[in-house]
Amino acid sequence: MAGPSSALRPHPHPLAQLSRDEFARARDLVVKLHGGGDSLFFRAIHLQEPRKAELRPFLEAEHAGRLTDETARPPRLALVEYDVLAADRHEHTRSVVHLGTGEVVSKHTAEETSYPYYTVGEFSKCEDIILNSDLFKEAMAEFSLPDGFTITVDPWPYGGSDNDGDPRFMQGLVFARDASSENGDSNHYPYPIPIIPVIDWVAGKVVRVDRLATGGADDGIEPAPRADAPTKLFRKARPAEYVPELLDGPLRADLKPLNVVQPEGASFAVRADGLVEWQKWRLRLGFTPREGAVLHDVCYEDRPVMYRLSFSELTVPYGDPRPPFHRKQAFDFGDGGVGRAANNLELGCDCLGAIHYVDALLAAADGSPTDAKAVVCLHEQDDGILWKHTNFRTGRAAVTRSRELVVQFICTLANYEYVFAFKLDLAGAITLETRATGIVSVVSIDEGKTSPYGNVVSPGILAQNHQHLFAARIDPAVDSYAEGDTRVVVEESHGVEPHAQTNPFGNLYEIRRRTVDRATWIDAEPRLNRLIRLENVHRTNAISGKNVGYKLLAPATQMMLADEGSIIAKRAPFARHDFWVTGYRDGELWAAGEFTNQSRGEKGGVGDMVSRGDWFTEDGRGATNGHDGGDGGDGGDGEAAGKKSSPVVWTVYGLTHNPRVEDWPVMPAETYQIHLRPADFFTRNPALDVPSTRNEASVLVPCCGEADAAAEKSGSAQESALNHLQGSGKGGSAGEGRGDKAERRLSKAFTGLFKSKGKGI
Amino acid sequence: MAGPSSALRPHPHPLAQLSRDEFARARDLVVKLHGGGDSLFFRAIHLQEPRKAELRPFLEAEHAGRLTDETARPPRLALVEYDVLAADRHEHTRSVVHLGTGEVVSKHTAEETSYPYYTVGEFSKCEDIILNSDLFKEAMAEFSLPDGFTITVDPWPYGGSDNDGDPRFMQGLVFARDASSENGDSNHYPYPIPIIPVIDWVAGKVVRVDRLATGGADDGIEPAPRADAPTKLFRKARPAEYVPELLDGPLRADLKPLNVVQPEGASFAVRADGLVEWQKWRLRLGFTPREGAVLHDVCYEDRPVMYRLSFSELTVPYGDPRPPFHRKQAFDFGDGGVGRAANNLELGCDCLGAIHYVDALLAAADGSPTDAKAVVCLHEQDDGILWKHTNFRTGRAAVTRSRELVVQFICTLANYEYVFAFKLDLAGAITLETRATGIVSVVSIDEGKTSPYGNVVSPGILAQNHQHLFAARIDPAVDSYAEGDTRVVVEESHGVEPHAQTNPFGNLYEIRRRTVDRATWIDAEPRLNRLIRLENVHRTNAISGKNVGYKLLAPATQMMLADEGSIIAKRAPFARHDFWVTGYRDGELWAAGEFTNQSRGEKGGVGDMVSRGDWFTEDGRGATNGHDGGDGGDGGDGEAAGKKSSPVVWTVYGLTHNPRVEDWPVMPAETYQIHLRPADFFTRNPALDVPSTRNEASVLVPCCGEADAAAEKSGSAQESALNHLQGSGKGGSAGEGRGDKAERRLSKAFTGLFKSKGKGI
Repeated sequence: MAGPSSALRPHPHPLAQLSRDEFARARDLVVKLHGGGDSLFFRAIHLQEPRKAELRPFLEAEHAGRLTDETARPPRLALVEYDVLAADRHEHTRSVVHLGTGEVVSKHTAEETSYPYYTVGEFSKCEDIILNSDLFKEAMAEFSLPDGFTITVDPWPYGGSDNDGDPRFMQGLVFARDASSENGDSNHYPYPIPIIPVIDWVAGKVVRVDRLATGGADDGIEPAPRADAPTKLFRKARPAEYVPELLDGPLRADLKPLNVVQPEGASFAVRADGLVEWQKWRLRLGFTPREGAVLHDVCYEDRPVMYRLSFSELTVPYGDPRPPFHRKQAFDFGDGGVGRAANNLELGCDCLGAIHYVDALLAAADGSPTDAKAVVCLHEQDDGILWKHTNFRTGRAAVTRSRELVVQFICTLANYEYVFAFKLDLAGAITLETRATGIVSVVSIDEGKTSPYGNVVSPGILAQNHQHLFAARIDPAVDSYAEGDTRVVVEESHGVEPHAQTNPFGNLYEIRRRTVDRATWIDAEPRLNRLIRLENVHRTNAISGKNVGYKLLAPATQMMLADEGSIIAKRAPFARHDFWVTGYRDGELWAAGEFTNQSRGEKGGVGDMVSRGDWFTEDGRGATNGHDGGDGGDGGDGEAAGKKSSPVVWTVYGLTHNPRVEDWPVMPAETYQIHLRPADFFTRNPALDVPSTRNEASVLVPCCGEADAAAEKSGSAQESALNHLQGSGKGGSAGEGRGDKAERRLSKAFTGLFKSKGKGI
Repeated sequence: MAGPSSALRPHPHPLAQLSRDEFARARDLVVKLHGGGDSLFFRAIHLQEPRKAELRPFLEAEHAGRLTDETARPPRLALVEYDVLAADRHEHTRSVVHLGTGEVVSKHTAEETSYPYYTVGEFSKCEDIILNSDLFKEAMAEFSLPDGFTITVDPWPYGGSDNDGDPRFMQGLVFARDASSENGDSNHYPYPIPIIPVIDWVAGKVVRVDRLATGGADDGIEPAPRADAPTKLFRKARPAEYVPELLDGPLRADLKPLNVVQPEGASFAVRADGLVEWQKWRLRLGFTPREGAVLHDVCYEDRPVMYRLSFSELTVPYGDPRPPFHRKQAFDFGDGGVGRAANNLELGCDCLGAIHYVDALLAAADGSPTDAKAVVCLHEQDDGILWKHTNFRTGRAAVTRSRELVVQFICTLANYEYVFAFKLDLAGAITLETRATGIVSVVSIDEGKTSPYGNVVSPGILAQNHQHLFAARIDPAVDSYAEGDTRVVVEESHGVEPHAQTNPFGNLYEIRRRTVDRATWIDAEPRLNRLIRLENVHRTNAISGKNVGYKLLAPATQMMLADEGSIIAKRAPFARHDFWVTGYRDGELWAAGEFTNQSRGEKGGVGDMVSRGDWFTEDGRGATNGHDGGDGGDGGDGEAAGKKSSPVVWTVYGLTHNPRVEDWPVMPAETYQIHLRPADFFTRNPALDVPSTRNEASVLVPCCGEADAAAEKSGSAQESALNHLQGSGKGGSAGEGRGDKAERRLSKAFTGLFKSKGKGI
C-alpha cells in the first residue's frame, strides 16, 4: 500500500491516462510542428507509456513508500498518430511529444507499404463512398431487390493484398435491409448481396466491384456468369430479427428477476488516475484505442505480480477458398482497434450489481478529444465456492465463496462482438476471459444448396467456416520489477518407467522443468500437462524452498488452419503456436506487428521478435534451434539484433467456428479463459482469511406445495426488498409468499397430479 | 409438456426415487427372504431403475400426453445391497425386489474376490478398531507426541491389493491432533504420523502396521530403521487451522456483502417425484448412494436430449513410489460413493439466491431408511452475457444475460471435497462441472528435506503429487428415445493443401466427420479441433439439412500417468483415454466397473465394455481395430459377447495435482467443465426470446469522491433494501450514501493525493 508520502502533487501518476488538457496540448503541439502547410488527419492520441527502465525505479519507490519531490519521474509523453494528407499518398506519422517541455521527442513516418488501421470515421465514410459510386450502382443493376428494401454496407478491412504495391484499400460487404418497418434496427444480415465493392482510400472512390460465387458443393470456386436479366434476390429469405420489438414471437415471460444487491456498496475503489484497489489487489487501469482496457502494475499485498496485462491481437480468417473470400481476414486490434470500437456500456445491461464505469478520450479527425463514455466497467461478482472442507467427524463445514473483481469491455466490429474481461480473485489468481458473440458473417448461397465452406443457417444464407485466433500479452513482474528477476519455466508431468529400486510399482511420475533460455515458441501439450511458470529467479518460498511464481494455465485450442505458405498464415505467424516467449522491448505490444492492415506478411510480430534471437540466460546466448528439448523456437539464427532481455509471454487461443444453426441470427457466447494462479508465491492459501459468512439474503424455495414457514417468511422479505428497490408495489401483494404463488402457477398445469407428501425425491 | 391426462394416480413415476414406505418394504422383503438364520449388514437400498426397453415406451407416451391407466408401466423395483455375515466371509449380495408383488426378482452373490465399497458406518468403525489395537499401540510406541495431542485416524480404502487372495482390508492414515484448544475442529492434517495400520475387515482387527518412509530426495524408497528411543514428532510443525475461530489472524473485514435476490422467487419448480421444470427444460432428478444426483430424461421443449446424465467414477492415484504409497489410490465412487458422502447443504453457505434442497434416504446397517438431509440443491445463477449485438449505425445494443439452473451436490471423502454440478442454460446447453477443493493428502517428511514426490507445504509436511481422474457418463437420446436413433460422430477441422482449382490461396479448411461404428475409445486432439457429436440418425435440421445433434466439448487434460503395467493403471483403464463410446446395457454405469475396492484390475468397466465388441452400425459389425481412421478402439476382438447396441459416451478428464503451497491448509477450488451444446438441434438461437431487460437493481459506483447524485440515490436504495432484508439498521445511517463512506475510508489512506477532477482515466 502506498504510504502517505508516496505520491506528491502536482505530478500525475506516470501511468495515468492523458487528461483532457494534456490531450489537447499534444494535438496542438503536432499541429504547430506541421505549421499551416500540411493537411492532417488524426487517428489517435494517447499516453505514451514510460520506458520500463524509467518507470521501474519510480514504481519501486512508490511501493516502498519513498516517493518524494526528488524522486525521478519518467517524462510525461503523448503519442499522436495521424496522416499527413497529400494528393497521391497519406503519410502515416507517429509523433511523440513531451507534455512538460512541449518538445517533439520523435517523429516517424511509416513505410509506404505500412497501412494504418481504419478509424470509426473511415468506417462511416466507407458506406457513403460506396453508395454514391457509379461502379457500384452498375454492379447492383445485376440484382433486383424486394419492394421496400434499401442497401446497406458493412465496412471491412481488405485483408491481405494479393499484390505488392496495392494502395490502401477497404472492402464493403453489401446487404439489403427491409426498411418497411421503419425500425432502423431491422437486421440486414439475412439479405447479403453477392458483390464486394473495393475502395481506394487515397483516391477516395470505388475502384472495383468483385462478384461472389453463390454456388454449392459442386459449383467450383468462380462466380456464376452474369444473367441477362436482373436476378431476383431473397425470394425465400426469412427475416432474422433479434431486437425484441421486431421478434416474430413473444419473449419469455417466466424468467423471474435475479438481482445482485450490494447493500454496503462495492468493495473496490477506483481513483481518477486509474488506481484500482480491491481486497489485497492494487493495479493501474489503462485504456488504449487499440487494446481497450490494460492492467498495469498489478500487485498483491504490494508485491508486484504483473507489469502489464493486455489483449494484443485477434485475427479472424475465413476458410472459404472462393476469391475474394481468401482475403476475408480481419485483425481486430491491428486493422481497427477494440478500444476504439468499445461499446458505451449501460447500467443494468452488461453487468449486475454495483458497477463503476470508466470513460476515455478518443481523437476526432481534427485531433480534438472526443468523449468515449463508459467504455470499461468494473464490478464484483460471485463465482461459486472458493474453498470448502467438512470435518466428517463433527459435521462442521467451513465454506467460502469466490468473489471476483471484473474489469470488462465489449467491442463491436461490424457484425461481431467480443467481451473481454480481466478477473482478479480472492486467492491471488487472475483470469483473462474472452466471449465471442454477435452475428456470424454470412454470404449468399443459391437457395436449396449446401456447401462444404460453411453451414446454411437460414434459406439462402451461408455462414462461412472461420477461426478466431487471439493473443494475450503477459508482461510479468513476479515479486520484483528488476530486470532479469523473472524467468519462464516450462513444466511437465511425465510417467516413469518401472524400476526395481526407484519405481517398483510403476506409480511414480516426475515433474520435469526447463528454463526458457531464449526467445521461442511453445506448443500446448495437455497430454504432458505442460504449463508455463513465471518465476522469480532470486526469491524462494520460505516453506517449499521453490522459487516464488505464478503458473499460466491455458487450455489447448486449435491453431491457424490456413496453409503455412498462404498469405493468411504469413500475416499471423503468432497464430501457429500456443505460447510465445519474447525478449522485452519498450512498445512491442503487437503479436502480429503494428501494421496488420493489408499486410502480406508479419512485420514486427512475435515471429520477428523470436527471430532476432534474444536470450534470457547465458545458456540461451547463441543457442541453436531446438535447444530446450524439442520445443525450442524457430529463431535460432542468433541475429545481431538479439540481446539479453526479460521474457514476455504471449498466450494464443483459438475458436474454430464452424457455425451452428443456433448461432443465427445472433450467437450465444463462446467463452475462453486463461488462468494465472500463484504457485508457491504465497506461504499458504491466500484466501484463508476470507470469512465463511452465512449469506442471510438467500431463501428457501419450497417444493411441492409444502408451506415452509421459514421460506415463506424469507421470500416475503426478498419480495419487500425488491418493492423497495423498484419503488413500486410490483412483485405481489403483501403477505402472499412467493412459494405459494409459484405453486399455484404450477398447479394449474399439473392439477391434482402430484399429491405425494414425501419431500425426498 | 405433459398434458393433464399424462400421469395418473396412484402410480408413482417410474423414475421417482423410493418412498420411505417402499424403502422399508424392500428391506423387509430381504429380511424375510433370509429368514432368521442369516446375519445381514445392509449397504444400500434404492430404486432399481427400469430397463430402458421398458421405460422408453412409457416416456414416449408421457411426452405425447397419452398416458392412461392402460399404459404399460415398468415394474417398480428396488435394489438392496447387503452382506450376509459369516465367521470367515462376508457374502456381498444384491437382491432386486418387486415392490408391487413382493417377489424377489433376482439375488446375486458377488465373487469371493469382489469387495464392496465402505459404508459411512465402516468408516467410523475403522478408527475405533485401530485405536484399540495392540499392534497399533505397539507401533505408536516408536513416537512421542507433544503434550495435549491425541491420535486421530482417517479411514482410507486399501488400494489395489499386492496379492491375489488378500482379504477385504482397509487402511488408516494416522494423525495427531492438538486437543488443547478443546475445539473439535482443530486441524489434524498438519500432524501426520508415519505409520499405516491395516484392518482385516472380516477378522475385524488390525493385522499389520506399515511404516512409512519420511526421507527426502536422496533417501531411497524404504523407511529409515527404527530408532532406539521414541522419535519426537512435530518439533517444528505449525498449526494449519481453517475454521475461522482458530485462525491465527483476523478475517478480512472489507469484503462487502453481495446478495442474490430473486424478489419474485425462483423460475424453476421441483415436484416431490423428482420432476424439475425450468424455462423450456424438463427433467427427472434422481439420486443414488454411489453417484449422487443423476439427471434422467432431460428434455427441451419436450424434445428428448439426454436419457441419463451422471458422474460415474473418480480415481485418485498418487505418484509417490515408496511403498505402501503405491496403494494410495481411491475410487471415490466405487470404494465409497459420492452420494453416500454428500454434504448436508445449508442455506446461505453453498449457493446464493433462492435455493431448493433435496433430501434422500440412505440405508442404515439394519436396512432402515435414514434421512440424508439437503444432499442436493437447485438454484439459478447469472453467468454473464449470453448474447449481445450493437448496431453500430444506430448505437442500439441488444443484450441478454445468461441464466443457469444449477443442480449441485458436494461430497467429502476424508480430506477432499468435490463439488459436482449439472447446469442447464437458456440456449439449450448443458454443462457438467467439477470443482476439487478440501485438504490435500499429506505425509511426514523429515524437517528441512524436500522431495521429488511432492511439495513441502508446511514444515515437515509433504503434499504428494497425485492425479484426479474423473469419468462422466452421457447416455444420449437426441430428439428420440428409439433404439438406434442416436449415433456418435467424431468431427475434426483440417487444413487443406493448396490446389490451383480448389484451394488456390491456401485458406480452405475442411470439416471431416466419421461415424463411430463400434465400441471404442477416442483421444482428445485439440490441434484437430476434435469434437464428439451426438446426432439423430433420422431427423435433419429443416434449415441446414444436417442431422439434428448436440456436440460435446471437453477440454483436453492429462490422462493417467502410472505405468501401463502397474496395478494402479490396470484398475482404471478408463483413465487412459479422453472419451469412450460403449454399447448400452441396462445397469452398466461404472467406468471402472462395479467392484473397484481393492481390485487388481478392471472388472466390467469401459475397457471390458469395448472389448466385447458391440457395434452401432452394420459397418462396425466385426470390424477390426483401428477401423475408424487410426483412433479406433483396442477392442477389435469381436468377441461373441458383442451385439448391435446404442452408443453411450464417457468423458474422462483429469487434474494432475502437483500441490502448491497455496493449496495448504485448504485448497482453492480447481474447476473443470464439460459442455454439451446444441448443434443444428434447433432452427435458430433458442435464446432469441430471452428478454433483454434492463436490470433495475444495479447501481452506479461513483469514482473519486465525485458525488454522483443518481448513484448516491440508487446506493441508498440498495442499502435500505438490505436493511429490510436483515431486519436491522446495520449498513449505515440514513442519508449517508455508500459512495461517500467508501470515499472517506479511502481518503484516509491517500489523504490529499488525488485531487484530479477528470473522470476519465
